Parts: sequence; C-alpha cells; structure tokens
Amino acid sequence: MLGPRRGWQALRRCVSLPRAQREVRLRVREALGAREPAGEVKVQGWVRSVRSQKEVLFLHINDGSSLENLQVVADPSLENRDLTFGSAVEVQGKLVKSPHRMQNMELKAETIRVVGPCDTLAFPLKTKERHPLEYVRQFPHLRCRNNTLGSLLRIRSEATAAIHSFFQDNGYVHIHTPIITSNDCEGAGELFQIETSNEAREPAEKTHFFDVPAFLTVSGQLHLEVMAGAFTHVFTFGPTFRAENSQSRRHLAEFYMVEAELSFTESLEDIMQDRLEKTLKNKFVIISYNEAVEILKQASQTFTFKPEWGCDLQTEHEKYLVKHCGEVPVFVINYPYDLKPFYMRDNEDGPQHTVAAVDLLVPGIGELCGGSLREERLPFLRSRLQRLGLTDAYQWYLDLRKFGSVPHGGFGMGFERYLQYILGVENIKDVIPFPRFSHSCLL
Amino acid sequence: MLGPRRGWQALRRCVSLPRAQREVRLRVREALGAREPAGEVKVQGWVRSVRSQKEVLFLHINDGSSLENLQVVADPSLENRDLTFGSAVEVQGKLVKSPHRMQNMELKAETIRVVGPCDTLAFPLKTKERHPLEYVRQFPHLRCRNNTLGSLLRIRSEATAAIHSFFQDNGYVHIHTPIITSNDCEGAGELFQIETSNEAREPAEKTHFFDVPAFLTVSGQLHLEVMAGAFTHVFTFGPTFRAENSQSRRHLAEFYMVEAELSFTESLEDIMQDRLEKTLKNKFVIISYNEAVEILKQASQTFTFKPEWGCDLQTEHEKYLVKHCGEVPVFVINYPYDLKPFYMRDNEDGPQHTVAAVDLLVPGIGELCGGSLREERLPFLRSRLQRLGLTDAYQWYLDLRKFGSVPHGGFGMGFERYLQYILGVENIKDVIPFPRFSHSCLL
Repeated sequence: MLGPRRGWQALRRCVSLPRAQREVRLRVREALGAREPAGEVKVQGWVRSVRSQKEVLFLHINDGSSLENLQVVADPSLENRDLTFGSAVEVQGKLVKSPHRMQNMELKAETIRVVGPCDTLAFPLKTKERHPLEYVRQFPHLRCRNNTLGSLLRIRSEATAAIHSFFQDNGYVHIHTPIITSNDCEGAGELFQIETSNEAREPAEKTHFFDVPAFLTVSGQLHLEVMAGAFTHVFTFGPTFRAENSQSRRHLAEFYMVEAELSFTESLEDIMQDRLEKTLKNKFVIISYNEAVEILKQASQTFTFKPEWGCDLQTEHEKYLVKHCGEVPVFVINYPYDLKPFYMRDNEDGPQHTVAAVDLLVPGIGELCGGSLREERLPFLRSRLQRLGLTDAYQWYLDLRKFGSVPHGGFGMGFERYLQYILGVENIKDVIPFPRFSHSCLL
Repeated sequence: MLGPRRGWQALRRCVSLPRAQREVRLRVREALGAREPAGEVKVQGWVRSVRSQKEVLFLHINDGSSLENLQVVADPSLENRDLTFGSAVEVQGKLVKSPHRMQNMELKAETIRVVGPCDTLAFPLKTKERHPLEYVRQFPHLRCRNNTLGSLLRIRSEATAAIHSFFQDNGYVHIHTPIITSNDCEGAGELFQIETSNEAREPAEKTHFFDVPAFLTVSGQLHLEVMAGAFTHVFTFGPTFRAENSQSRRHLAEFYMVEAELSFTESLEDIMQDRLEKTLKNKFVIISYNEAVEILKQASQTFTFKPEWGCDLQTEHEKYLVKHCGEVPVFVINYPYDLKPFYMRDNEDGPQHTVAAVDLLVPGIGELCGGSLREERLPFLRSRLQRLGLTDAYQWYLDLRKFGSVPHGGFGMGFERYLQYILGVENIKDVIPFPRFSHSCLL
C-alpha cells in the first residue's frame, strides 16, 4: 500500500515531471491555432482523409475540438493498411508552418500509431461525402462524427454555457427544479408516469414508490416560484417532458427548457424587455390576443381551424401572424382567461376576460417562449383553484401567497427551438444529442 | 396594434428612460456593497426583523441575494400592522453610510410599501429562531427562506456554475445525455420505468409510447462514450435516478451527477490525477482493492459483513478504510472482474481477476466518485457481452469499437455528496432544492 504521504508524492511526481520527459499533447484546435512552430508534440484524433502520393503521405485528422482538420505530412513509409478513414491515430511529430495558404500549421509526422482501426466497409459514414441529416439520424451512436452534427453539438454546448453565464452574471440563482413531481403543472393530460420496474411488471400489486402517483415534469415553473419567493431572481435549465404523440419536426418527448422567474415584477414588459431583448437582439412586435384574432379574421387566407376568440392559436395561425408582422419575432399578450392555467394573473377585464400571458412567436418555428405574470393575490388564486377543485392539491402554492406574496412573473424558452431558430435547422431532432419521440427511444 | 417599428420604439423608450425618471432598483447585496451614498433608490425584499423604538423604526430586509440583511431606518410613522416578519416590502429612500460598525450602508426610508403581508401566526418560520434542518425540511415550499437553506442553495448554484466553467475552460464539450433511455447501464435492477399516464391507468391495453420499455437513466456514461468518440473530452451534469428503497442520509431517488469521459487515455491515473486533483485540492491515498481487503481482514474491528475478496465494499468497510488511511480521500483501484459492469477494462491479471475501476471514498460520505477505463478492445468486449447474453442489445456499443476505437475512460461524481462533503452537511436532503426518496415526492 502507498501511505498517505507516499501516494500523494507519487501523484505529484506524475503531475510535475520535468518538461523534457513530458509529452506535449495538443488538441487539433490548439495545433491549428499555434503561433509558432513547436518541438515534439503528440496529436490524437480520427482520420478524415488519407492521400498517398509518391513522395509524401497526407492525412487529415480531427479530434472534435474544431470543424477544421489538422494536416499531417508524413513519409510514405509510414502508411499501413489500418490507416483508413475513420481510424483513430496518435501522431508524434513537429508542428511547423504550413507552406499552403489554406492552413496555418501542419504536423510533420515522425511516428503514426493506429490505436483503433475502422472497418470502412461497414462504417455508415463515408469519406468526403455530404450525408443528408436524415441519413445520419439513423445512426445515433455515430452521427456525432459527422461534420454538421458535430458542429451543431459544439454550438449547443457553447449556448448552454452562455445561458448559464448570462443568468449568473445577472444575479440569478440557479435552481435544479425536480424532474419527478407529484404535480401536473399545466393541467395537461400528456404526462409520463413513473413506477419502479417491479411495479410495471406486476401491476396487480401496485403500491407507489413515492406513495403517490409521480410524473415527469412538464415545467419547473411552480417550483421556481417557490424559489423566487426567497431569491427574487431564479432560473432553471433542464429537461422537460411531453407524452405527445407527435412526429413533427418541432416536437420531442424530452426537451430542454430555460425558465426564469422574477419577483417584484408588475408588468409583462419587465419580462419581455429586460430578459428576452437581451437574449434575442432582434426587432419584435407586440400585439394582443384580441388584435391577433382580428388580424386572422381579416386574413384572405383560409385556415383549417377557423380563428375564433377564445380558441388557441394553431400553428397555421402563428405562421400567418409572423408573416403579417413582417417575418420578425412577435409577442402575443393577454390571452383568454379560460384558455390558460390557473396560475396566470387575472387582467380583470371584460367581457372578453383575459390573463397577463405572453407567447413569443418567431419565424420558421412558431412558439419559442411562453410567459406570464403569476396570480399573486390570495383571493383571486383561491377562488380559481376552488372552481377547479384543486384547493387541496395546491395548498402549498396558496401558502406562498399567504406569507409575503410578491407580484412576480417569468417565462420559459424551448432550448432546442431556440437552437433551431438561431441556426436555421429544419428538424428539432438534429439539435439534440439523443432525440426521444413517440415510437423512438434509441440507445 | 403596434406596428413593428412602433412596438420596438415603445419598448426602447421603456429601456432608455432618462435617468431622473428611472427608478434605481438595488438588490440587497448591491446596496450592502455600495461604496458611496446614493440618491433615491428602491430596495425590495422580505422583512427579517422589525424593531420599533420611540424615535425610530428599524427594519432588516433580505431579498435572497445575500445572507446579510440590509438595515432600513425609518420614521415610526411609517409603521403599520402589515409590516411584520415575513412580509414583502418595497422601500424607497436614500442609501447612506451607516453610523454602526457592523454594517457599511443603510437605507433611510421615505416610503415603505407592504406588497405582500405575512400571516405570522400560520407562518412556520419564526423571527430570530434557529430552526433545526429537520424542522424546516417539513416545509419544502418555504424552507428556502430559512438562512441556512438559503445559503446552501446559493452555494449549490455557484458550484453548478463553477463546474460548467471548469469543464468549458478545459476544452470539454457539454452533452445533454438523455434522461429517458432504453438501456440499463449498470445492469442494476433498481430502475424507474416510464409510461404515459393512460398506459398506467389501463395496463391491459399496454403499448409502449416508445415501442420498447423505457427507463429513467442511472448514468449518462454510455452516451458520453458515444460522444467521446467524436469530441475526445466530454462531460454531462444532469439528473440520474435510482429506485432504491432507502431512507438514508446519503441516498436520493433523484440526484445529480457530474460525469466526464476522456478519449486517448490509457491509465487510471489520467482520470484520477488530471481531473479530480484539481477538483478536490486535497491529499489522497491510492490503494488497490486487494490491499483494501487485506486491511479489512487485519482490522481489529468486527464488521457486519465479513470482508472477503470478490465482495463489494460495504459502507462500514469504506468508513474503516478512510479512517485507516488518516481520514483523507482514498482511491480504491482495480476491483474484481465479476463485481463490475461489462464495460470496464479487463486487467488480464489472475488468479484474482480484476478490472481497471476506481472509486473515491471520502471522510464522512463514503463513495463520492466512481470511474474506470472502458474496455476499448472489440474481442474482449464482444466475448464479455456474449457471456452475458447482451450482444444484441449492445450492438451499437460494439460498433463504437469497430470504427476507430480509442483507449478511454471517465468518472462520475455525485453532486449532492460533493456538496455534503465540502460543506459538512449531514443529510443529503438539505443540499438539494426538492428531495425525492422512497415514500416522498413532495410538490
């Protein structure tokens, strides 16, 4: 056994080997961006192309750190039959200025080691082919090695980090709202229910693991409201779920939402301008639901669903509104009271009774964000829950209005739709690593 | 309707009002940290104490941006019966240097508006009381307004941001590994299964939403391996699930894991030193599983579970090992082959056959991290899966070894246990916003 001291020392030694003995490993991105030629370095990655000439062997290798490949120049004697498209290699050599205009640096190889060969005949990705996204979607375990998917996932990773930074920099507390919940926030029916696999096998003996039926969350909003009552500004960024039987290019059964909740907020504009303006940096239009219905009624176009006050806006309606407003993002505000969930703030208007809700429609996507002021007034909320027979289930939510309630509101943004929008990606299944939808849960 | 231009202009106006007209809202943290007295400001928050004297009224208010309260000094005429502990207030006034040593700034109130009163009799939190954590745990919707819980959740939020930054800064690509999966990674039985709520109600007509049985993930590792085969260094930080019937202070049914996967890694030390050393900045010991069993066998202590080569280390064993090594973190490496899942790399030793696995045990917690080298060699993996009858289910995983396989490994860290460890928090339920465990899924 290595004692505490000796174990530590042994590890320190590994970390602080003298420079000469340590191998310098570079990511492809670092190698490409190097300012100066470097001595002995090692670069690891997958072969993207092999070009063998009489005097020289050219390889392009990539390790997923960038879209661009690193050119490796080697003596033809280093070629071997395992050195094919898709194989994993370690190249030891010197980083030198490239004589070619197209690249900054190239690697003059001294040794090339194939650490993992690739059965190119069976490999569904082919060298130098531009595979359509539909094709690579069939291979969820390999498509990340495709240029387009690789880039999309790197951007998704950067966007994730940017969202965390944005809220952090603006004084928001991040909350991990629960995935498993005994609430059904939206009152919608399309929920996934959870049981232990034993219960699933022997439904006769059903006792719930949590004692009560439990579901996958459809939104972290109610839980965020709890936290906005302590931290004022909070956000969450996690998976949400809908058991919608949809194969559309805009829907997934598992998707990510950015949700924020702000206390001491008294107008929808606080939510629209302070937060989303910064997020989108784009022109946008504000219309009321009433105005939206009027626009739709006066449209020359015929809709499958006839526009009618009190009905939800359909995809065809959303598209028309965005077009009508000049293909810019459109906020629709103040929706019918009876159309929206119990927690939205009563506008106390009439006879067309509305709540302070807002949806953001964007070109090509439709609904990107939804938000509202929340009903902070105990009597309003109580009587609404009473009418819905939900007083017992939401006693805890009523409590929040009893002990220092504040005017507050928030919004949620579908992260995949956001990526589709900013990147112009047609199908939502291409901006998420492992898409889940009805009839499909690969891997 | 506001046209595109007018709508935009209207919003711009709200954002860029001349300074005199705009109210300056300060968070409590900003007010406390102000260098200079400021003119008219507004601070919003919840009342933490009210002290009424003949000549002056003192309030302490807090908005969750810091542990410290802001002192408000007001004329006694501003007092009213709604101004109680727990009520939500907006205070308009001037920020001035405080004459007291204990604080930097205080707010001289001109107006105090109670926006949300608090029924103090019914409110389970009481002014100036140090409620035990067990007590506040009963009120998942209110406990975040307790000082201790509030601080823990702020630290959790900071730690979350730090983990994202750390990996981002070190060139890792963040991957949202799926929550719903058709795999059972660990081969363990303690899974949650998912069905639509309709299926749950009418199990007779059971057809799966995804066509196949689907489960909540127990680990993102296998999916990370897919991605490590494209991006070299990847990580995920998301919820994982175990349907363990445990009420222990170390277990939750829903918890968060930080998991990383590194390609082109050939030794366990790469995983232990490069990554975890930075994370923990602490002395640690490395012992093999064989050595661990010898230590346990020679212990004077009697264990409930007799230590035996080939058996899993129990909590009592882990505790003893940590104590034996001097109450420092202990890596245990090279576990019995038959004890570990199929994906761990065969050490090809014997007669005590092991795999390149590592667990990190820490004082007070036990297992904090687990990692391994993954079996990258096709023949080894294939024969192991064959023996387990899993070749068909893991054809995609075998594929990863066929097309440019690389030596790789990774680890996972329980985020709540990490928080328990660095903060010295006894019960895991106090470092997560909404704990879920058997018989309990509140809210």
